[in-house]
Parts: sequence; structure tokens; C-alpha cells
Amino acid sequence: MKLIRPLVAKLDPYVPGEQPKISGLIKLNTNENPYPPAPAVLKAVKAAVDGRLRLYPNPVAQRLCEKLAALHGCEPDNIIVGNGSDELLAMLVRGFTEPVPAGAKSKVPSSSVVQYLWPCYSLYPVLVAIHGAASNPVPLHDDFGLPTVAELRKGKAWDFKAALTFITTPNAPSGRGYSGTELEALCQAQRGVVVLDEAYVDFAESNAMALALKYPNVIVARTFSKAYSLCFQRVGYCVGPKPLIAALHKIRDSYNVNGLGQVAAEVTLANLPYYRANFKKVIATRERLARQLTQLGFEVRPSQTNFILARPPRYPAKLWLEKLRDLKVLVRWFKDPTVTEYLRISIGTDAQANALLKAARKILG
Amino acid sequence: MKLIRPLVAKLDPYVPGEQPKISGLIKLNTNENPYPPAPAVLKAVKAAVDGRLRLYPNPVAQRLCEKLAALHGCEPDNIIVGNGSDELLAMLVRGFTEPVPAGAKSKVPSSSVVQYLWPCYSLYPVLVAIHGAASNPVPLHDDFGLPTVAELRKGKAWDFKAALTFITTPNAPSGRGYSGTELEALCQAQRGVVVLDEAYVDFAESNAMALALKYPNVIVARTFSKAYSLCFQRVGYCVGPKPLIAALHKIRDSYNVNGLGQVAAEVTLANLPYYRANFKKVIATRERLARQLTQLGFEVRPSQTNFILARPPRYPAKLWLEKLRDLKVLVRWFKDPTVTEYLRISIGTDAQANALLKAARKILG
Repeated sequence: MKLIRPLVAKLDPYVPGEQPKISGLIKLNTNENPYPPAPAVLKAVKAAVDGRLRLYPNPVAQRLCEKLAALHGCEPDNIIVGNGSDELLAMLVRGFTEPVPAGAKSKVPSSSVVQYLWPCYSLYPVLVAIHGAASNPVPLHDDFGLPTVAELRKGKAWDFKAALTFITTPNAPSGRGYSGTELEALCQAQRGVVVLDEAYVDFAESNAMALALKYPNVIVARTFSKAYSLCFQRVGYCVGPKPLIAALHKIRDSYNVNGLGQVAAEVTLANLPYYRANFKKVIATRERLARQLTQLGFEVRPSQTNFILARPPRYPAKLWLEKLRDLKVLVRWFKDPTVTEYLRISIGTDAQANALLKAARKILG
Repeated sequence: MKLIRPLVAKLDPYVPGEQPKISGLIKLNTNENPYPPAPAVLKAVKAAVDGRLRLYPNPVAQRLCEKLAALHGCEPDNIIVGNGSDELLAMLVRGFTEPVPAGAKSKVPSSSVVQYLWPCYSLYPVLVAIHGAASNPVPLHDDFGLPTVAELRKGKAWDFKAALTFITTPNAPSGRGYSGTELEALCQAQRGVVVLDEAYVDFAESNAMALALKYPNVIVARTFSKAYSLCFQRVGYCVGPKPLIAALHKIRDSYNVNGLGQVAAEVTLANLPYYRANFKKVIATRERLARQLTQLGFEVRPSQTNFILARPPRYPAKLWLEKLRDLKVLVRWFKDPTVTEYLRISIGTDAQANALLKAARKILG
């Protein structure tokens, strides 16, 4: 008798970016914010480290939901908080998509289809495989732009009835931003649930939160990890129509968000000017780094995020990855053919950008 | 088009014990430890609240796994850490059980069966329903004792090929402990995976960890929540055979355990004498409270946990729940017919036990 489900036995697990054990590396590989949380956040979290650790946290992160509702102009019932937005992405797949029925191999019903425009956040296909649903990856334009609805209709591969559609906006790993108009057209054309994964949106010129409060099938996913320097404490959230949010609550682990993470996120929302100043710094460094890498012969894609995708000169990207690592600079490279010629470089401090540029000049001799 | 899966739409969510908003209540309803974490734990967590919060935590809680492996005499690959043991229980269902295939209504295949001896942790049926698998609850003896394998064979309801079997040991909500011998006999008789859920085992006379390191189909689940006063930070773990643990890692969220929780759990393991002293205090209070409630006419079940199940005199248990709440003492009552005549009372400090006794005397006039 087999103890492990055949579906699970054959899964390829998601490989997160390396968390290096040796210090002294300049870590530009997992899109973390180079700036620490606001001093008031650190102070509040420290102050919360007391006997209360023995008690369960609020099971629905009630106070945080209320503050997020005030921020986004909606009600707490429009919001669900997760153990990082990764947990919520997995719940979205489980809540809105059927596993592929046995014997449906030739034609998968739309109720089991999760689709996305590729390349995007590479976790989606992993979550779909874990759930036993079917992935329908449809290519973005070569410049990582969104196809129009008309183009998708013409191309046939897109499923307008797919149970779930993920759009990483701004896009990862390219950094490209999308306009509210083109996102709205896509949301309107879809019959199933559309998730706008705005993990990087604070570094962009615009966001699409309004769509989650306008359409019955649109959910926006956000995270405190990147823009709000809280990767360590795992807090993300979704905003959307109440019936969809209520369905997600039904499949949520009872106490899914740790208490100190809740405290940190609440105080973060009371200190937005600090973070907005950091966004400006990150954007300024991004633009400067893009210019200087271009001068060195890199082909840098336009970015609305805290990373850039850049095709390096002279050597293949994978070799650059290794050469940079030898010089103590850690960036990210993906095997996927759509981006395999590129490096993805997280935006660090100006000093880290300078160290990367120095290493690049050394490699180029 | 329906946006929510029919399976999810009809789910009844798990209802956790009340987390009261008004202070001044004596909270004996969710089995939290009345004593705070060790001073060294609080100190270490405070010290970790710094710029590192911007970074991802270790994705597999590597250092914690190593320390747990040393504690239990196994290897880190025998261990997986979760966002509380609740997350792991959900993963166990997803990793080892098939959703019931469509059209299998008359006879559910064993590969879709999750079974448990009832009453037990009431989360299991919720997790099974979320996954679309089939629950097979089989009654414990009236005194909450485990049926023998021979009794189970005779009774016909038990499935020796069930994909997954949960045993809450010591039992919740009764508090009854089980011997290693009877647990081992059950593990040997099962063809599928057996999970020994030892959430309360630190308050018991013995544990069954050895079985997880002896049999290819046995996993022990533990938590830092109850005995180690860390509910707030969500850290649990499973110990078991490497192939089963590896399968769970494949379906784990990439960064499922928050960083400060990892720090807290690591330092907890370096301070076990502090916690063991607390276990002794809790056990002493438990035994004293059981004696005194018995003197007041309660029928108290023997307990190997940090709570007791007690059938109150004179009024129905539900009325006692309300009367105690009016006197600011919060306990737990379950609708389930097997325990509906009982109150489940968490063991607090001696002062809290005295307050409960005082309230009970007042109710009895």
C-alpha cells in the first residue's frame, strides 16, 4: 500500500531564492527591502514580547483587518489576512478551483483550470500541481506586456471561463507595470475569479485596488513582506468581494497569522510616510542602477518594482550569476526559457547598487 | 457561473474557543499555559526584533529542526516545522488522502478515508471536509478509552486500510492518556499513515515518540503552543519517517514559519527545565482542582493533559457555562453528544483554580 498520494509523490517542490548562510554576501536575490521596518514598528513589536506569547493571537487578525479596511475604503469583511500572501495564493487555488476529475485527461473542465500569463510568479504552477488542478500558462508578449482581450480571443489558448486567473501586476520577474484600463478589461472578460497579485505594487505608478471593490470576481493580493520590510513575520492579505472572502475564511487555518506579525503590520499602517520615503529611495536607486547597467551594455527592462530584469553582455546570464557570486554579489537567475537570458536583480541600497556595478565592471574587465 | 467551489460553499467552518475582548475574565477555555515563556525566550525574541525583520526567515526552520532532532534522537530530515501544528494537520490530510472521487458515494475507497476515534480534536473533520475526503469517526469507549484492535475488527466500522488515522493522545477533550502498548498495537494494525497528535503530551506520564522513529507509517505531531507557552507565535512540528516528511515538505508553503517564532522555539529548547517545572505546577493544580471539584459533586474524568473534563452537578453543562461566564470565568462546552454533559476546564494558576472553585460554590449556593 502506498502511503503518499501519487500526485504528491511526483511533485517538484518550489525552490525559493537562496538564503545564504555565509555573511558578507550582498543579497540582491529575493526582492527584500534594503531598509528596516520603521523604528515605531520595532519598538511596538519589542513591547509586545511578554507573557501574552502564551495566548492565542486573534484568529482573524481583527484589528489589522479594521485598519486595512480604513486604508482601502472598504469593510473588514472585504479582507482576509494570511501567513504571507503565499498562504493566501494557495488558499485561492483550493477555494475556487476543482482538482481535475479522474478520466478528464483529454479536455479539462474550466472549473479545474488555473491560468496565468507567463512568465509570472513561479509559485502559481506549483500551487496548482499540489492541488491537482490544471495550469493554463499563456505567454505574455515578448516585451512582457499584457495581451489585449481581443488578442487572447484570437489566440484560442486562453480560457475565459477558467475558474481562477492569476495576474502578477506589476509583473515578476520582468518588473513591467500594467495599466488599470488593461487590467479592468481582462477582469471584465473573465467569468471566473481573477486575482491581481500586487506584491510589488508599492513601487509602481498605479495600483488596481479599485477593481477588487468594483467587480464580484476580482481579488487583489498584497503583502507586507517586500514594501513594508516584514518578510520575517509573514503577513499578507487579500481584498475582494465579501462572498469570496467569506469562502476563503472557511478554508483558513484557525490561527493562521502569528501575533507579533499582527502587531508589526498594525503599527506599519500607522507609519506609512516612513515607508513611502523608502519607496522613493528604492525607485531612485532602481532608475540610477538601470541607467548605469545600460551604460555597461546590459539590456535593462523597464521596472515598476523593487527589482530589475537585465540581459547581461558578453557572457550567458547563468555564468554572470556565478561570476557575481564569486564577487560576493547574489542575484537571481531562472532556467525558464522566457527569461533565461536575464538576471533578476533586487534593488538594494545605493551602496549595494555600487557594489554590484563595481563587480560588473570587474567581470567585464 | 459559480465562483466558489460547491464543496467550499457548503463547509461549516471550525469555531475556535472564544478569545474574549473584555479583560478581567478568567480564561480557562482554550488550554493555554498559565505561565509565560521562559525569561530567556522573551529576551532572545526581543533581541531579534531588529532590521532582520526585512529578510525572509529560514524556509525550513533549519536550526530549529537540528535542535529538535537532537532532542528526539533523530535527524533533521525526520522533522517538519509548521505554522502551529494545525497547519501540519491540514497538510497531513492533503498529503496522504485523496479527495473522494466523483461518483464514489456508495463505497468510499480507503485512499480517501481519514479516520479517528471520537471524541477527539474537533478540527479533524473540518480539515477532512475542506479537502473533500471522507471522515470515518469511530466511537471511543464510553470512558474515552481506546478500543483494542480485536474490538475494532469485531466492530466492522473501523478501516484498517484507511489512508490516514488521527489519534489525539492524550485525548482531547477528555484528557485521558493512552499507553504506548495500546498505541503501538493500533499503529501496527494500520496499513495507512497513523498520526499520533501529542499536543498535550508534556502533561502526561508517557509519550509515543519512539513509534514515529520505529514504524514507516507513524507520525507524531507536537506543538510549542500549549506546554511551551507560545500559542501567539504559531510553531508546531511533526516527527516521522523521512519519506513521509519529505512528502509534506513538497506541499508546504515556502516560508511557513515566521522568524520570531523560530527564534522563540529554538531558545525554548535551551530552557527545558523552566518548562518542566511549569508542567509539574500545572499537574499539581490539575490534581488538586479535580479533587475539589469532585467534593463539590462534579464527576471529573482522569486527565493527563492541562485541562479536565468534568460533568457538573445540578444544572446542565451549558447552563454552567453561562453561569460561570456571568461570574467572569470562561470555560469550554461542546455540543457534541459524547461530551455535551461536560465542561472542559483548562488548568490555570492556583489562583485561577480557586476563582473557579469559588464561582462553582456560588452557583451551587
